[in-house]
Amino acid sequence: MDYKHLLADRTQRMSASAIREILKVVSLPGMISLAGGIPAPESFPMEIIDQLTRTVLKKYGSSAFQYDLTEGFMPLRKALVTHLSKKGVCTEAERITISSGSQGALDGIGKLLISKRDKVAVEAPTYLGALQAFNPYEPDYVRMDTDDDGLIPESLDDVLSHNDIKFVYLVPTFQNPTGRTLPLARRKQVADILHKHQALLFEDDPYGDLRFSGNELPTIQSLAPEHVIYAGTLSKIFAPGLRIGYLVAPKFISHWLVLSKQGVDLHTSTFNQALAAEYLEGGYLQTHLPKIIELYRPRQQAMLKALEQYFPKEFHWAHPEGGMFIWVEGPKGFNLENAYKKAVSRNVAFVPGRYFYSHPDEGLETMRLNFTMFDEETLAQAIKTLGEVLKEELA
Amino acid sequence: MDYKHLLADRTQRMSASAIREILKVVSLPGMISLAGGIPAPESFPMEIIDQLTRTVLKKYGSSAFQYDLTEGFMPLRKALVTHLSKKGVCTEAERITISSGSQGALDGIGKLLISKRDKVAVEAPTYLGALQAFNPYEPDYVRMDTDDDGLIPESLDDVLSHNDIKFVYLVPTFQNPTGRTLPLARRKQVADILHKHQALLFEDDPYGDLRFSGNELPTIQSLAPEHVIYAGTLSKIFAPGLRIGYLVAPKFISHWLVLSKQGVDLHTSTFNQALAAEYLEGGYLQTHLPKIIELYRPRQQAMLKALEQYFPKEFHWAHPEGGMFIWVEGPKGFNLENAYKKAVSRNVAFVPGRYFYSHPDEGLETMRLNFTMFDEETLAQAIKTLGEVLKEELA
Repeated sequence: MDYKHLLADRTQRMSASAIREILKVVSLPGMISLAGGIPAPESFPMEIIDQLTRTVLKKYGSSAFQYDLTEGFMPLRKALVTHLSKKGVCTEAERITISSGSQGALDGIGKLLISKRDKVAVEAPTYLGALQAFNPYEPDYVRMDTDDDGLIPESLDDVLSHNDIKFVYLVPTFQNPTGRTLPLARRKQVADILHKHQALLFEDDPYGDLRFSGNELPTIQSLAPEHVIYAGTLSKIFAPGLRIGYLVAPKFISHWLVLSKQGVDLHTSTFNQALAAEYLEGGYLQTHLPKIIELYRPRQQAMLKALEQYFPKEFHWAHPEGGMFIWVEGPKGFNLENAYKKAVSRNVAFVPGRYFYSHPDEGLETMRLNFTMFDEETLAQAIKTLGEVLKEELA
Repeated sequence: MDYKHLLADRTQRMSASAIREILKVVSLPGMISLAGGIPAPESFPMEIIDQLTRTVLKKYGSSAFQYDLTEGFMPLRKALVTHLSKKGVCTEAERITISSGSQGALDGIGKLLISKRDKVAVEAPTYLGALQAFNPYEPDYVRMDTDDDGLIPESLDDVLSHNDIKFVYLVPTFQNPTGRTLPLARRKQVADILHKHQALLFEDDPYGDLRFSGNELPTIQSLAPEHVIYAGTLSKIFAPGLRIGYLVAPKFISHWLVLSKQGVDLHTSTFNQALAAEYLEGGYLQTHLPKIIELYRPRQQAMLKALEQYFPKEFHWAHPEGGMFIWVEGPKGFNLENAYKKAVSRNVAFVPGRYFYSHPDEGLETMRLNFTMFDEETLAQAIKTLGEVLKEELA
């Protein structure tokens, strides 16, 4: 039987994540892969999880395994109110919708807001997973300029002035792929611009808790709550396999989100939400998060030190105060394609930065390096190899 | 800020599930609700689950909490191959996609296949959750006739002859809402008709394992594998709160399903999939399923007996050999609207059958009664009250 003619129009916009395809290639034995974007398994609080499963079974019994509200498990939503208030996000449990991971939050908003050919404003470069979530709803993307401090507010203002934008998508803290963080002054500017244009922002904040140094910055949500849908996740600070994300949205949006989610997955796993509720409520996150930071900080430092030592002087990179990535830019006109192949042949992998741009010719000289998955020595070794490859390619 | 103009066109097709709205009303204390469609919490294998959490933590450690393949956790997919082979569904692990509950399977197929105004053939009455999943993709529904034996094959043939149908949606075993089961002869006819028209069927089978009497029937998938997407779930035989469903589809469809799911939720909870894998692999389902059956069978018998005893002779109902529902039909022209209100005022609730029809004037005389949530005595009492109400309304 021929199935091809049965596919919906939108499926032509679905494509395998380039990163996931790359990850398949680089999962070969012996490969040091800086291509991933996943937390180190040794960062998971396994002993705490063991205890939490017993607590949940005892405290909630069969109700942790029954169908539950589409909006989310109430004890988790209440615990998140407290967690979020520490991050300056002031909300109430009724305004929080639990999603099946960050990806579920991205799909939920895309499904709710994007009609075919609607315009969505995105940073260049931007998070690939967001494009993958939005693509099936067939938007057109409008590109916003960035520099080492992230989104350039004037570019946002310009884009909103000249386009009918459904919503703006932004990862303002330790962005994926660049690791960049929008400074306070720009956050205030962005809030003002949103207000001026009566525009809606999707503030995606999966990495904000992973801060190694410097001071926490207010979320844009806290500066313009009526103009922001804020998304967070427990994937980086608890365990990604549990698929727990959440959205804080204006009441009108939350109402529709629930209707949308009813059709998509009815609700997110009750058991996993109960585990997450106990993790937050029991104060475990507070004791465990510093351990995650202490695991990642020296890894990041080791990578930065090795970059200094081994990378050609034509390359430059930022020094992010947290997150999971370092973004490296080569000289303009340089194409990392060959270097990528050569590096893989020497058992070191990364993601060429061009995959994070919506336009195919941008970012050919850029690369995303992940530092969470290997110890300091291995990271230094990998950067040394990469540096050698780059020097050969430059020569 | 005004958000209404930001909604996508498709959101006008999203609406709160009538049943969920009814469930809210009827969750008042003292209410005996036959309106639900959920498993009894005492059917959950809590002691086994307690053991499984320890087994999974020991066996898989942190990998049960890490990101995993979008397709699904391989040990679960392998365990499902064995489970499915016992049900006559012959497949391989690579053809199975794990979904976030049955709802995730419905959304996945809807998203993949339905373009706006595409035609989807559905039974009258049909499962509401399917319509909720498909609606946002804006299909037109084409109605197929049913009788006490479920779908009338001639109606399917007729619909496929006169319409360009994207796919046919069917719950052939212990259907929701009617509890009806398609007999073997009709299954063979359906398979032939699918083949004749080179059509695709979505065979949704959430209740097939809940058989109290009679012989298991082959799935339509086993009769026409190239024409069927088969969906199952562990919600009724393990625990719904874990949100584990699955799809068996032709290879071409499976490939696209994975791309679609990447954007929707990346993957289903690894931990819950590992629990499900151990539940199947360890032979726990085999020992536990008879206990679920033994819990529900007497409840169904009690309801049937009470219907015989207390319902007016103008009403008739089927005697399903399994599932979770009994479907009752009153005399033509009778409208259950008033009876519903009166019943609720006497603390007994049910779902008026009209909600399961796509046309607003159909099924006014019908009702869906669930028997899984209460003990025999309570069910008999509820049916007695309902019978009194119906007699008053008929008078």
